[in-house]
Amino acid sequence: MSTVNTKAFGTTAADKPLDQLTIERRTPTPHDVEIEILYCGVCHSDLHTARNEWHGSVYPVVPGHEIVGRVTRVGDHVSKFKVGDLAAVGCMVDSCRECEYCQQGLEQYCEPGNTLTYNSPDKHLGGQTYGGYSERVVVDENYVLHVPANLDLAATAPLLCAGITTWSPLRHWQVGPGKKVGIVGIGGLGHMGIKFAKAMGAHVVVFTTSPSKFEDAKRLGADEVVLSTDRAQMKQYRKKLDFVLDCVSAEHDINAYLALLRVDGTLALVGAPEHPLPVAAFALIPGRVNFAGSTIGSIKETQEMLDFCGEHNITSDIEMINIQQINEAYDRLLKGDVHYRFVIDMASLKN
Amino acid sequence: MSTVNTKAFGTTAADKPLDQLTIERRTPTPHDVEIEILYCGVCHSDLHTARNEWHGSVYPVVPGHEIVGRVTRVGDHVSKFKVGDLAAVGCMVDSCRECEYCQQGLEQYCEPGNTLTYNSPDKHLGGQTYGGYSERVVVDENYVLHVPANLDLAATAPLLCAGITTWSPLRHWQVGPGKKVGIVGIGGLGHMGIKFAKAMGAHVVVFTTSPSKFEDAKRLGADEVVLSTDRAQMKQYRKKLDFVLDCVSAEHDINAYLALLRVDGTLALVGAPEHPLPVAAFALIPGRVNFAGSTIGSIKETQEMLDFCGEHNITSDIEMINIQQINEAYDRLLKGDVHYRFVIDMASLKN
Repeated sequence: MSTVNTKAFGTTAADKPLDQLTIERRTPTPHDVEIEILYCGVCHSDLHTARNEWHGSVYPVVPGHEIVGRVTRVGDHVSKFKVGDLAAVGCMVDSCRECEYCQQGLEQYCEPGNTLTYNSPDKHLGGQTYGGYSERVVVDENYVLHVPANLDLAATAPLLCAGITTWSPLRHWQVGPGKKVGIVGIGGLGHMGIKFAKAMGAHVVVFTTSPSKFEDAKRLGADEVVLSTDRAQMKQYRKKLDFVLDCVSAEHDINAYLALLRVDGTLALVGAPEHPLPVAAFALIPGRVNFAGSTIGSIKETQEMLDFCGEHNITSDIEMINIQQINEAYDRLLKGDVHYRFVIDMASLKN
Repeated sequence: MSTVNTKAFGTTAADKPLDQLTIERRTPTPHDVEIEILYCGVCHSDLHTARNEWHGSVYPVVPGHEIVGRVTRVGDHVSKFKVGDLAAVGCMVDSCRECEYCQQGLEQYCEPGNTLTYNSPDKHLGGQTYGGYSERVVVDENYVLHVPANLDLAATAPLLCAGITTWSPLRHWQVGPGKKVGIVGIGGLGHMGIKFAKAMGAHVVVFTTSPSKFEDAKRLGADEVVLSTDRAQMKQYRKKLDFVLDCVSAEHDINAYLALLRVDGTLALVGAPEHPLPVAAFALIPGRVNFAGSTIGSIKETQEMLDFCGEHNITSDIEMINIQQINEAYDRLLKGDVHYRFVIDMASLKN
């Protein structure tokens, strides 16, 4: 298979910093779209994978799954994109397309497992897939998204992971007018959850451990902000919420949030704390409460989200960096020191 | 308010055995039904409350919320029952009737809290309500159930708690033909769960730690039985079940059962382990899995269950005891030594 050398940024071992390296991208096959990457968001998963914290990393690792750019080449049978189009790629670049979940348009839950944008077996070239910290990416058109022209392109990148990860559960559990929704944690995920829940018409209650984030929560769209370390404040919301989106990856008391749900309410976890969360039986039983999880979203859902963002002019709050600052950005990410998502200006890779 | 002295069996302290005592029952008010209690099932909650293990017991405690009997008197405005009718009372004898959940016919989730059959504040006489370990009970007709005439009356008693506790979640999560359902644990609750799930038309997979219970599980209606301590057997059911009803009150690995669920599947907990259950984020997130709880059922649902039991000739498997054997029965209950529910022949109270 013919390939093209491609500049990238990645790492060859868990304990090494990211640095420039060269990878190969396939020449577009008939259904492929080749995209020049203009911006790539920085997700905590990038760091987990680069450092092998989830124990499945195959090196070299080139992270990045919040990709936006412009189409530079298309395969002969591509019908959805043409050269010059804006395009985006999220967390997956393929799936089996045959299992019942793929058939239902739930390819994020593909039974044999979808092909992730990085560190997944590459069906075309062998080895692993490489992500968006690179000049270009080649993806089957069915896994590429259209980007509304009115959106700030750099601030659109995080929608491809932080955006869809919060959008999908809010839609699945039917958040909208007349619903009271809690958003726990104001970070890369949470700040998108606030924007979406508000734009969907819900009454949004934000929970944070940081009084310093109160004002920002309101600016992002919160109707109310609650200091989650204050028992008296928490008690006021007991059994008051229809849905809670829990965006916290650190250890936290899940029972305190389950207690906020009305009968038949759901708390959906999208952050991924490392250790199991102790759940009290009596946090679930007396109110028929649901504790659920959710991961990214389908391709169709991702396009719907991007279209919604175009209509409502929603993007992520970002800090732009050059690719050469990525290791420093990871250090800041670990300290939670980012408002609210780093995005790499991929032009810097040419430096 | 006029009352009538009533023989009962109960306890005056957490550390004392149950013994005979005298309580008062109100003379039926216009909407009340007075029932002579013929049989009363023995639920683990009876023991928890008698021994103050849930820390809310007010003494004397007269347990019993699986009550069947015959109507002996009715108030002037009672329209649903007449003297001589079979009648049953379950876990609640009243609720606020005004909150949104009561209005929706979900009085088991009554917002200010419903009046439980025992150890709840008694709206009529003050003090606490007294349960079914007694000669008679007086209950508002709206909280009394009709009993199908074809059912064995003693074996019907456990339907009022063990029955409805398993019926309600199976119905709520739409178990039926084409669905694969797991039932975890074969005890008072689990054995009813198996019978119901099978009668509802589902494919029933039973999970037990006891190879000795395999045959009985099949007799009760299991299509398949799995030894839950055998990893290889458990692995075969990974992502295969639509719904799991978890009837285990002892500590157990909840993640092992969450792993059995298909995408969007639900595990509903109806047993109540004392300590919090550690739930791994990755048990919920990759399959949008739900971990839920459920408690008893509404009055309407309870009547539907009893009617269904009449049509399908379903009752509990029971061991009959005299009231004088209750303390010994509690000891056996603690050892799990019962197939599958003790029922007290209340005629023995006359001895």
